[in-house]
Amino acid sequence: MDDARRWFKLSSPFPMKRGGALVGARLAYETWGALNPARDNALLILTGLSPSAHAASNAEDGTPGWWEDIVGQGKAIDTNRWFVICVNTLGSCKGSTGPADINPANDQPYQLDFPDLTLEDAANASHELVHGLGIGQLACILGNSMGGMVALAYLAQHPNSARSHISISTAPQAQPFAIAIRSLQREAIRLDPNWNNGQYDKDHYPEAGMSIARKLGVITYRSAMEWVGRFARIRLDADQRDDDPFGFEFKVESYLAGHARRFVRGFDPNCYLYLSRASDWFDLAEHGGGSVSAALAKLKVERALVIGVETDILFPLSQQQQIADGLTAAGAQVTFVALDSPQGHDAFLVDTVRFGAAIGGFLDAA
Amino acid sequence: MDDARRWFKLSSPFPMKRGGALVGARLAYETWGALNPARDNALLILTGLSPSAHAASNAEDGTPGWWEDIVGQGKAIDTNRWFVICVNTLGSCKGSTGPADINPANDQPYQLDFPDLTLEDAANASHELVHGLGIGQLACILGNSMGGMVALAYLAQHPNSARSHISISTAPQAQPFAIAIRSLQREAIRLDPNWNNGQYDKDHYPEAGMSIARKLGVITYRSAMEWVGRFARIRLDADQRDDDPFGFEFKVESYLAGHARRFVRGFDPNCYLYLSRASDWFDLAEHGGGSVSAALAKLKVERALVIGVETDILFPLSQQQQIADGLTAAGAQVTFVALDSPQGHDAFLVDTVRFGAAIGGFLDAA
Repeated sequence: MDDARRWFKLSSPFPMKRGGALVGARLAYETWGALNPARDNALLILTGLSPSAHAASNAEDGTPGWWEDIVGQGKAIDTNRWFVICVNTLGSCKGSTGPADINPANDQPYQLDFPDLTLEDAANASHELVHGLGIGQLACILGNSMGGMVALAYLAQHPNSARSHISISTAPQAQPFAIAIRSLQREAIRLDPNWNNGQYDKDHYPEAGMSIARKLGVITYRSAMEWVGRFARIRLDADQRDDDPFGFEFKVESYLAGHARRFVRGFDPNCYLYLSRASDWFDLAEHGGGSVSAALAKLKVERALVIGVETDILFPLSQQQQIADGLTAAGAQVTFVALDSPQGHDAFLVDTVRFGAAIGGFLDAA
Repeated sequence: MDDARRWFKLSSPFPMKRGGALVGARLAYETWGALNPARDNALLILTGLSPSAHAASNAEDGTPGWWEDIVGQGKAIDTNRWFVICVNTLGSCKGSTGPADINPANDQPYQLDFPDLTLEDAANASHELVHGLGIGQLACILGNSMGGMVALAYLAQHPNSARSHISISTAPQAQPFAIAIRSLQREAIRLDPNWNNGQYDKDHYPEAGMSIARKLGVITYRSAMEWVGRFARIRLDADQRDDDPFGFEFKVESYLAGHARRFVRGFDPNCYLYLSRASDWFDLAEHGGGSVSAALAKLKVERALVIGVETDILFPLSQQQQIADGLTAAGAQVTFVALDSPQGHDAFLVDTVRFGAAIGGFLDAA
């Protein structure tokens, strides 16, 4: 059994795109399946903003992962065939080095002393990991949401580093609606007095700001259509309500509160700010002389699967179409799948039957 | 010249739907044009959550109103023909009685002692005003956004009170996406320590909460499509940026900040909370034994114009279609107009050429 949870030491100093460098930084990653002798069956998964590297259960951690239905033996990403690597993004707080870690320069948490983070840095770190595992070219690089942007940054900086690419509900550049949402999420955290310019601790923690940020995230990750069917105007039972003036009354409100409760202490606020801003900064056009299509033309993948969801308001279908069109124009063999899943941006986590069929079909044809 | 700014004294006590009553309450309203001898040319405008009764300039206030392009002599709502009344919603802070006013029971501001407010109460107050002006039946009742819900509540409680109805970008009942957005706006205000359970003053004012609430409003009032064209990834000049860590960098962020700056002190936070919750509570089905269609069948209007916008994510086109279908089934002569204006929910304030054409065409045919 080759499943594993590991840490990979990045080169030190690890240079950052906007200046500065990380000393002694590492990436947390997990793997499933086995690298074949030709070392040509590796599939790298790059995640959204908040998930860890635990995409699926494995021999060292039997708890279900965030993509349990997709990754595993006999599943769409079949670990009998593929050596699957999932990496926790640089700058996150799930095992990889980020603002919540100790700065070796002064043995204090980095907090806002962490250097400016870009998705290009996250991509370069993942590329070092893949190289370090002795893989010259990936069979496939797959990215969801923010991870899709990291995948594009990876391919733009390392052309020919993957034979194929699966791009899911992502963006070749951050558009103003998504920037506005993320900016407001960051502002809610920054306005929380307990954020204290990044210098909070467990007893003085920006709960309120993180709660608002998470709720706003969930609102934009799902879709109005799904909620009409799921929550309609169902009210909470009297014993589920609080006595606050203007307290929660509708089921959709307690649903959001539940999401916030699970997230607020589960993700570091400064890491959230850094990754959120990195997403706003991302613009693939910077790798194509100001043109997204020119940048897409440089990625040099042979085949690509691009999946988008019609109800996604954060990463709209038009941006998935743009990626598919650009890769097609560059000569890749592209499959574009537009799904009408009602779950919006989160559909790849929920509508795993349809996503699995598309991903499995694409990978089986390789 | 019959243009006027006036206050109308409501019956006292004025009973409220969910209990309690208002003593000595009033409505602020403005009028344009003249009521004809038959008293059958009156058109009532009910507004969105935040606008005042100043829909257009008039003899007593020459400043442009919020619907200046639509209301006036020779305009779509032609004040040469129609006696136009625009009312500031009960519970607002623009001249009508609301939580920011003095409670005659104790000479203190109502704040959270204001009784629970519903849109049915707002509708009944407006109906008293119309009756008080000696108008037995309106030629037309027009509502935008929240005002559209008030108009439905008006007609449901007072059938046959208008010959025709113009319904714009509204909802026959609050859906969970809109409830979630409004709940989060209220939470941002409530979590601001300066809100202080409604007991703020000018020196201790929930600026941060109001700012977040307003920005979230503006994000959902417009559309991602409009912003791609308008803001793209344009950055602020260096001298427009602040030095805060994670401070604003993109033009869309300063646009939102400008909207918030103008609103934060311009609208009372408690009034905002009351009107926001009243919108969540609104469900026309309560007037139809649990059925929206049954309730729409009771409104008894002869003609209706229903306008919606495809890019509106807060009051989606499907809800406008539901209103149009229900009124049609009830025997009204209905014109349904679906506009592809890029400005989302706010299109009725911006795309006045197309809205004016639809409204003018409908009114001219009367």
